[in-house]
Amino acid sequence: MKTINKIIVAGITSVLAVLNAEAQVKVKTNEMKTNYSSELEVVNQLSTQSAVVNMPVSKLLNAPGNEALKDFFFTPPKNTSALKGKKIAVIVADGFEEIELTGPVWYFKQLGADIEIVAPKYNPATERYGLAFPELAKTHVMAIQYLQPVGWLKFDRTADQIKVSDYDAVFIPGGAWNPDNLRYDKDVIKFIQDFNKSGKLIAAICHAPVVLASADILKGRKLTGYWNIQSDLKNAGGTVLEQPVVTDGNIITSRHPIDVADFSRAVENWLLKK
Amino acid sequence: MKTINKIIVAGITSVLAVLNAEAQVKVKTNEMKTNYSSELEVVNQLSTQSAVVNMPVSKLLNAPGNEALKDFFFTPPKNTSALKGKKIAVIVADGFEEIELTGPVWYFKQLGADIEIVAPKYNPATERYGLAFPELAKTHVMAIQYLQPVGWLKFDRTADQIKVSDYDAVFIPGGAWNPDNLRYDKDVIKFIQDFNKSGKLIAAICHAPVVLASADILKGRKLTGYWNIQSDLKNAGGTVLEQPVVTDGNIITSRHPIDVADFSRAVENWLLKK
Repeated sequence: MKTINKIIVAGITSVLAVLNAEAQVKVKTNEMKTNYSSELEVVNQLSTQSAVVNMPVSKLLNAPGNEALKDFFFTPPKNTSALKGKKIAVIVADGFEEIELTGPVWYFKQLGADIEIVAPKYNPATERYGLAFPELAKTHVMAIQYLQPVGWLKFDRTADQIKVSDYDAVFIPGGAWNPDNLRYDKDVIKFIQDFNKSGKLIAAICHAPVVLASADILKGRKLTGYWNIQSDLKNAGGTVLEQPVVTDGNIITSRHPIDVADFSRAVENWLLKK
Repeated sequence: MKTINKIIVAGITSVLAVLNAEAQVKVKTNEMKTNYSSELEVVNQLSTQSAVVNMPVSKLLNAPGNEALKDFFFTPPKNTSALKGKKIAVIVADGFEEIELTGPVWYFKQLGADIEIVAPKYNPATERYGLAFPELAKTHVMAIQYLQPVGWLKFDRTADQIKVSDYDAVFIPGGAWNPDNLRYDKDVIKFIQDFNKSGKLIAAICHAPVVLASADILKGRKLTGYWNIQSDLKNAGGTVLEQPVVTDGNIITSRHPIDVADFSRAVENWLLKK
């Protein structure tokens, strides 16, 4: 009887403990969500009317309908070494959409991946083109939020210095000007073609799939991309699907910043299966 | 004898007068050229290192090799009513390359043309896309110099309000984002298709020919465009030529800002022949 009582008491205690833990987790999650919402909301309330057309990340993450995207950034990852040992090259030029680079890179780093930022070799156009490049452009690439320049990112290597064997995956962010610049760089196009032949992962979001069109690796492939370039992708031989993310063999593509979470997880899953 | 002398004197005087006038014009032209060079040079000397990658017009016009482009802007036109009665629609959205719009428009206006700025109907993306549009975006479109936002241009009408019969020609400037925005606007694409059917002039520079690709009017046509989009133009059925300006039937295209003079004159010549 004593033993049975003990078992019952122990059982009830453990059930209560589990319930209590769940309740605590629930409260904590709600608190976290409330806090996060408030922080973004306050930040947005503190901003005046934008001077130019742009895309502030705090607005994107706090917009109704983007709760899953917000959760993606504000939920700690389960396994911080899931991508340990995986090496990812981010190929990027001036005019990249900030969140489309920093979002996936932030996530891959959280999972222990090794990231290298790779830019085209610094080779500014001749004076005739009237372009003004600050000194920083020799070592950094410029981020935008839609039409607003917002910052600089230091690159680790240039496209003429990299080999296919250096990386497990290649990832190209969007922004209209960034892929526009990349697709004209011979080193970048050659590298993408060689990387594709190796069967390793090539991931591209938003306007970035035009680089794959220039590399002529889209014939017979299923993919997606920003609406405005979908006709170019079709004309390059691809079959365009209207989905947040499309995985076809070694090519993963997404449409725009809202797809960053699905895109990043698809890259993670692909690399985990290898 | 007296009469003959008078005639000779009068003749010499008038010859001298002509020579003198020519000399004055020459001196004046040289002075003007010197002044113009100096003004651009001084303006460029007064500017510090650019904060972002951009394309200042004063650098473009003053660069060695661009003398013809500079002359285009600093030589008064011969006939200020050459294009009188001609009505040109400039179709443009946020992110247009400033000189590619203001250059040709300035020239067409000098020749007496009637210009209307036409933008897509104001229809901002839903909150989910995180975009921030200032109030000004309801009545203006935003100019860039490469990656640098530089100003706003008021538009006269929106693309849902215009008819083919309203204009003698349509002109689309470049900038990566501007044509990217235009090609997704149904009113713009429908208008370009109808305008093409009418056989009236469609002129597009730099990245703008992608709008013609989206309108699917490039099959079997010769054209040119910015290098980075040339593969898209080929994939859309066009034959791309590496020339400052290509006129094929009712389509005139150019590659980049340096071609603004040749582009504008080709539009002028086309309209004069009509």
